Amino acid sequence: MSLIVHKYGGTSMGSVERIKNVAKRVAKWHNAGHQVVVVPSAMSGETNRLLGLAKDISELPDGRELDMLAATGEQASSALLALALQAEGIKARSYTGWQVPVQTDSSFTKARIKSIDDKRIKNDLNDGRVVVVTGFQGIDPEGHITTLGRGGSDTSAVAIAAAIGADECLIYTDVDGVYTTDPRVVPEARRLAVISFEEMLEMASLGSKVLQIRSVEFAGKYKVPLRVLSSLTDPSIPLQQEQKSGTLITFEEDSKMESAVISGIAFSRDEAKLTLLGVPDKPGVAYAILGPVAKANIDVDMIIQNQSVDGTTDFSFTVNRNEFKRATDLLTDTILPAVGAREVLTDDKVCKVSIVGIGMRSHAGVASQMFSTLAKEGVNIQMISTSEIKTSVLIEDKYMELAVRALHKAFGLDQEADQA
Amino acid sequence: MSLIVHKYGGTSMGSVERIKNVAKRVAKWHNAGHQVVVVPSAMSGETNRLLGLAKDISELPDGRELDMLAATGEQASSALLALALQAEGIKARSYTGWQVPVQTDSSFTKARIKSIDDKRIKNDLNDGRVVVVTGFQGIDPEGHITTLGRGGSDTSAVAIAAAIGADECLIYTDVDGVYTTDPRVVPEARRLAVISFEEMLEMASLGSKVLQIRSVEFAGKYKVPLRVLSSLTDPSIPLQQEQKSGTLITFEEDSKMESAVISGIAFSRDEAKLTLLGVPDKPGVAYAILGPVAKANIDVDMIIQNQSVDGTTDFSFTVNRNEFKRATDLLTDTILPAVGAREVLTDDKVCKVSIVGIGMRSHAGVASQMFSTLAKEGVNIQMISTSEIKTSVLIEDKYMELAVRALHKAFGLDQEADQA
Repeated sequence: MSLIVHKYGGTSMGSVERIKNVAKRVAKWHNAGHQVVVVPSAMSGETNRLLGLAKDISELPDGRELDMLAATGEQASSALLALALQAEGIKARSYTGWQVPVQTDSSFTKARIKSIDDKRIKNDLNDGRVVVVTGFQGIDPEGHITTLGRGGSDTSAVAIAAAIGADECLIYTDVDGVYTTDPRVVPEARRLAVISFEEMLEMASLGSKVLQIRSVEFAGKYKVPLRVLSSLTDPSIPLQQEQKSGTLITFEEDSKMESAVISGIAFSRDEAKLTLLGVPDKPGVAYAILGPVAKANIDVDMIIQNQSVDGTTDFSFTVNRNEFKRATDLLTDTILPAVGAREVLTDDKVCKVSIVGIGMRSHAGVASQMFSTLAKEGVNIQMISTSEIKTSVLIEDKYMELAVRALHKAFGLDQEADQA
Repeated sequence: MSLIVHKYGGTSMGSVERIKNVAKRVAKWHNAGHQVVVVPSAMSGETNRLLGLAKDISELPDGRELDMLAATGEQASSALLALALQAEGIKARSYTGWQVPVQTDSSFTKARIKSIDDKRIKNDLNDGRVVVVTGFQGIDPEGHITTLGRGGSDTSAVAIAAAIGADECLIYTDVDGVYTTDPRVVPEARRLAVISFEEMLEMASLGSKVLQIRSVEFAGKYKVPLRVLSSLTDPSIPLQQEQKSGTLITFEEDSKMESAVISGIAFSRDEAKLTLLGVPDKPGVAYAILGPVAKANIDVDMIIQNQSVDGTTDFSFTVNRNEFKRATDLLTDTILPAVGAREVLTDDKVCKVSIVGIGMRSHAGVASQMFSTLAKEGVNIQMISTSEIKTSVLIEDKYMELAVRALHKAFGLDQEADQA
């Protein structure tokens, strides 16, 4: 008997029929003797419907009231799932975030979980119940309802799994696992049976949309084994088959995993590059440029400062394409005159391609293999950024698919590894 | 400065535009220096939508989960109203039933309020806020969400008004007050400026749909002055005008009110009559008949036992038309053989017409005036039931409109009284 947390996204909960399917799947686990806690999202479209009403009423809606409003979506879907489980003949009960309670800070619309009381959940599990807990929400120290922000249900599920000491947290979603890269770009992309936590963290932060990065961070902090798997399979498939499906995000770096140097290729089109030319090269200049950017709440990703020539240097950085206009205005109107630079160059026709693999730690020459592959395809590299287990390059965005496909092949990701 | 509770029904909260209108109206009261607590229902249609989903999932849905589900409707509308108030430049905050908290018993889907903590509401009022509290819901001793049943928001509003010691509880709805009878049946029906609490209680229990009977009972128990008024007027009408509009339900029986013998005429088509013929007339027979009916959870309204002839009697009672088939089966299959009666007669083509007036206490002959009016119109009276301030008759339902109109005229209800 294991203690398992299931998380179902909005699409999986999107209709009465789908909720019944989720109940059938959970029933299968419960009837096999496992203790199950289920964390559902709101029915797909519901959160947007509610926030749309708020937007029609107020242009700058108050966070506290937005959370009060948005939290109803998960409360309703959780109650419906409990009803569907009962219709399957299973004892079930749903709880909101405040009932558990899931304690958070008071940052409305993007609250952080501080602690979770496991007493109610454990009592109900020991009474033979399936426990349904609303994702996405909690309660702050003053008793106000909070929400964790978009995708927060993944984080709720992982945090609850950590709090109750679950053996595994299963994230059921509309894809059947984590792929070597996006199959829409590379048809040969393969599902990974196992990926290390660190690789998953890099993949998530580099643009893979399978898991929210905060949930991966949480899983890492509390060492919760995560599995990403499909909610679209027939709920009556054998449990043994389902238990091995999808992708396991693991903390054990076993020898099998080492055999793959690169596990995946991530990419993001949401990039824009800004360059200040002719910046006087003196101490404090990086802060003089990036301080105002940070103060304007614009996240900076890659940063490059060139070798200084004749006492001046060129300084480049990338931001999310949504922030491109704000960053350009700030650089031109405020920062350029302040630091005495010559000119601002901007480019929003760029993208970032990254290779990720824990094997990079022990294998030399991985980055240079990446560069040579891109060179063979005639792709010019504009910026480079590296970490222990990833190398990212910024390239012109029209080359993105070409680059991803070439790298996928060059690193042998289209070949079945012996890891599965 | 007064302390006022406003209650708005689902129609008044039915769209973004209407919610904005509610906010404008509340703002007018707040800006005139009054402290205001607002109790909104769910947006019209929302509760039915949610319960429809539950019904699609489970034929016999669990009450606890139904309440968890249905309570989201008021939570969402309360948050939206708080946002709309903020958009009017007013400090506002919404609370769910459990946040106040509104303590109830554990009778899911029809819980009863046990106590209301006024601390949070009072603190916020003293901070200059308008406080929005979800209607219809509370929390039970185990921390489960409960709802008060259909129309429960009226009861919530009155209970909150009692708890905080409000000067008046205003029930805003889609009619502009309590009428002498239903204007759809009698075009000459007039709005009452004042009605006594006891008359309102009879009117509500006899079929007038303006107020939930439980909310009137609550108002009586805690002596909360209630006013029923329209939410469909222009929210910018002068406050002095709005304060005097609608119908005041009062506890003061002043001389003006006494001048009207009858205040209103109520009626109900939801009636059905059952008669047992040839019942042996011996002690305990009434219990032998009505005991099993009560045990089957069928509410009995009027009861008549005829004068005994030759040792047998006839026994008639009325039930809600919804229960007609169940009651008929029970009478025929179980009760008739058990008491040794001769025959069962049934009739669901009946209706109940009632005259209500506190003046009946001091004026003799009111009931006989009713009977003579009906006799003149050729309406046969099948059953009669009286209380201190009302007389009800059961008649064939095709005569209902005729009877109501004739009584309305006979008691001078179409004439302007001097009470307003």
